[in-house]
Amino acid sequence: PIYSATGLDVWTMMNQVAASVGAVNLGQGFMSYPPKDFIRQAAQDALVENTHNQYAPPRGRPGLLEQLAVRFSERLGRDIDSGNEVSVHAGANEALLSVFTAFLEHGQDHEVILMEPAFDQYTPNIAMAGGVPVYVPLRIRDGCDAATRNVSSDDWRLNMAELEAAITPKTRIIVLNTPHNPVGKVFTRDELALIGAVAERHNLLIVADEVYEHLTFGRDHVSIATLPRMWERTVTVGSAGKLFGVTGWRVGWAVGPAALIRPTLAAHTRIVFTSNTPLQEGVASALRQAAHNGFFAIQREEYLRRRDRLMAIFADIGLPCVVPDGAYYLLVNASAVRARIPTDYAFPDFITERGANFKLVYFFIKEFGVSGIPPTEFYSDAHKDLANDYIRFAFCKTEEGLEAAAERLQTLK
Amino acid sequence: PIYSATGLDVWTMMNQVAASVGAVNLGQGFMSYPPKDFIRQAAQDALVENTHNQYAPPRGRPGLLEQLAVRFSERLGRDIDSGNEVSVHAGANEALLSVFTAFLEHGQDHEVILMEPAFDQYTPNIAMAGGVPVYVPLRIRDGCDAATRNVSSDDWRLNMAELEAAITPKTRIIVLNTPHNPVGKVFTRDELALIGAVAERHNLLIVADEVYEHLTFGRDHVSIATLPRMWERTVTVGSAGKLFGVTGWRVGWAVGPAALIRPTLAAHTRIVFTSNTPLQEGVASALRQAAHNGFFAIQREEYLRRRDRLMAIFADIGLPCVVPDGAYYLLVNASAVRARIPTDYAFPDFITERGANFKLVYFFIKEFGVSGIPPTEFYSDAHKDLANDYIRFAFCKTEEGLEAAAERLQTLK
Ligand SMILES: CSCCC(=O)C(=O)O
Ligand SMILES: CSCCC(=O)C(=O)O
Repeated sequence: PIYSATGLDVWTMMNQVAASVGAVNLGQGFMSYPPKDFIRQAAQDALVENTHNQYAPPRGRPGLLEQLAVRFSERLGRDIDSGNEVSVHAGANEALLSVFTAFLEHGQDHEVILMEPAFDQYTPNIAMAGGVPVYVPLRIRDGCDAATRNVSSDDWRLNMAELEAAITPKTRIIVLNTPHNPVGKVFTRDELALIGAVAERHNLLIVADEVYEHLTFGRDHVSIATLPRMWERTVTVGSAGKLFGVTGWRVGWAVGPAALIRPTLAAHTRIVFTSNTPLQEGVASALRQAAHNGFFAIQREEYLRRRDRLMAIFADIGLPCVVPDGAYYLLVNASAVRARIPTDYAFPDFITERGANFKLVYFFIKEFGVSGIPPTEFYSDAHKDLANDYIRFAFCKTEEGLEAAAERLQTLK
Repeated sequence: PIYSATGLDVWTMMNQVAASVGAVNLGQGFMSYPPKDFIRQAAQDALVENTHNQYAPPRGRPGLLEQLAVRFSERLGRDIDSGNEVSVHAGANEALLSVFTAFLEHGQDHEVILMEPAFDQYTPNIAMAGGVPVYVPLRIRDGCDAATRNVSSDDWRLNMAELEAAITPKTRIIVLNTPHNPVGKVFTRDELALIGAVAERHNLLIVADEVYEHLTFGRDHVSIATLPRMWERTVTVGSAGKLFGVTGWRVGWAVGPAALIRPTLAAHTRIVFTSNTPLQEGVASALRQAAHNGFFAIQREEYLRRRDRLMAIFADIGLPCVVPDGAYYLLVNASAVRARIPTDYAFPDFITERGANFKLVYFFIKEFGVSGIPPTEFYSDAHKDLANDYIRFAFCKTEEGLEAAAERLQTLK
């Protein structure tokens, strides 16, 4: 199977490399600071009720479904029916697997369009559901000198002719990730309209992975489901872990028309039966409070500061980056670091076998004590070269963590 | 696909039927009483630490892995390596799906032996992983008059010749559920040895669903993994939801040799990435405390009382049952009730289309206000007749709930 039975996933692997040298961990996107008190308290309070400790209905706890309907009614500008147009999942990941399981069929070679870099779970999730991923890379606009100067995440473009060319009679789904991990690209309304037109022309489903919808910087997030005629063919996926900075809670959701959510829910019911109840209740309460306490605006400001600080840190040592308009990752072009790798540097086999980008990232972590993620893990073999020079750093980290990284990186000057 | 895209799962369906008449819900196996304070408190305490709110390693939080290793070292009488022989899952259900996904292959028609009645999630989980279920029913021993007298759950026997006959060159796995849901059968060491011998002869994997291992009444639970040469071919699955009466926490586990757990973990990592962290920590702490505070013995006594009370309630109204030696379900033979169904009784389509047993259960719930589950949902079409007369009731319910049921059932006298 496509999920390697022996290899480690990139997250566990890189967390282990980071831990081996006590690196400042800017790798995996988890928060190194605690959730706000009202969020934690919401979950603590939930545990008191017995009903909050027993099975939730597979679709989700009524209170959470209702809060999600409120939020998405506002976000999508239409009345969302909590009983039919929402399902709660064991994290956004399991929501995605449920959608793929619902709409792909083994033995049919159904194809799914992924834009690279593509979050590393998409490919195995599609394969488990019997689908075949087809990759279309985002490409940096001509004329950008990304090795020496910052580029905008908006300079990473989807070539519409390439997208069209990738579509065959077997194509069933386009996966769209906006704000985009790891590029930080926030797709514009115009871009979404073009993608939507392709989906419409070929009668494709759109899976909109919008887990970072709440984190954009100076640019508005647009849900493709809000574009004309797109609601009917779109499942929008989100995550409480990202929304509230509690990645370990494993509460995600899918929103879309009943005809799409019904089979998604049926798959979910068989994959995990239902998601954990106390944290669903915690999220419901947190959503209720966040609608009034200004949390989302405060959080966005905090992330903006973290983003700007991390960009400044890399600017200071002369490594250019891709300026993210959303999410909490920074792609840094570290081609200048490659020249520093001694020709006889000892790489372990599990790194060497994964190619040049893993070697660069491994060297960086070991030598400078700051860890990142090799973005080639987000690429198919055919396109890995596009990311060979990059390292992805996460800025969902404490000020102290970022400053500790800054200090360590001084040796790179 | 095998998971119906339109039909409701039996749990949601029967909970809705129960709610529609305000029935005393003895259907789905969730606790109608709160978890003990130390258990709830353990989870509340976990939420305070930030690391307990972020991603757990896919294999599980180290503290939980360690507690599970301690528990299983004792249960299985061998040193369990927490880093290699245990994985934590998003409920036992997801553990089972992970095992099936790891060891079955689409397009290969790998077969999996299920003993009927077989928990309703097994079949779709196997199908999602590309396997083909092959059913061997437990059969009531000759000479038992189950329609008029109580029988022992031990009277439900696996015919070894039938088991042998079901095995083909494509068979890969035998699923064994002990203590058994819904029969309450606790397989004896002799029975397990015979099943193990078949597995050995045909080189099959055993998936031992032992989620009720802590609940046996006057009979010892035996793990098949403790029998000679069985460890190597067995994955044992368990559940914190069942162990601590918190079915909504969605923390389960798989224990077995590293060679079997490694691919199981790889599948898990792609299915849900990781299980929720705070409740993993809660379970770790609860396990630590329960090892010393007598919880398991107290809980077993409580369940024994509930079982005996529910049996007495049905004895009082003259309906015989299958006396369970384990788990928290009671199969009641309600053939006497069928005669009371008016010939023109109005059944909704979603009941009628599922056959005689669903009609009996629906009638029972609607007329007597006490809900149960139709056990034919645990059978393949070929063997549904074996369960047509039965209704499954759960006794993981409060004394008040059981007494309320008793009172309502007086009308049946
Ligand atoms: C499965 S790793 C999850 C964290 C994340 O989304 C990321 O770091 O990209
Ligand atoms: C998926 S329903 C879970 C409860 C249960 O195991 C049962 O009632 O049999």
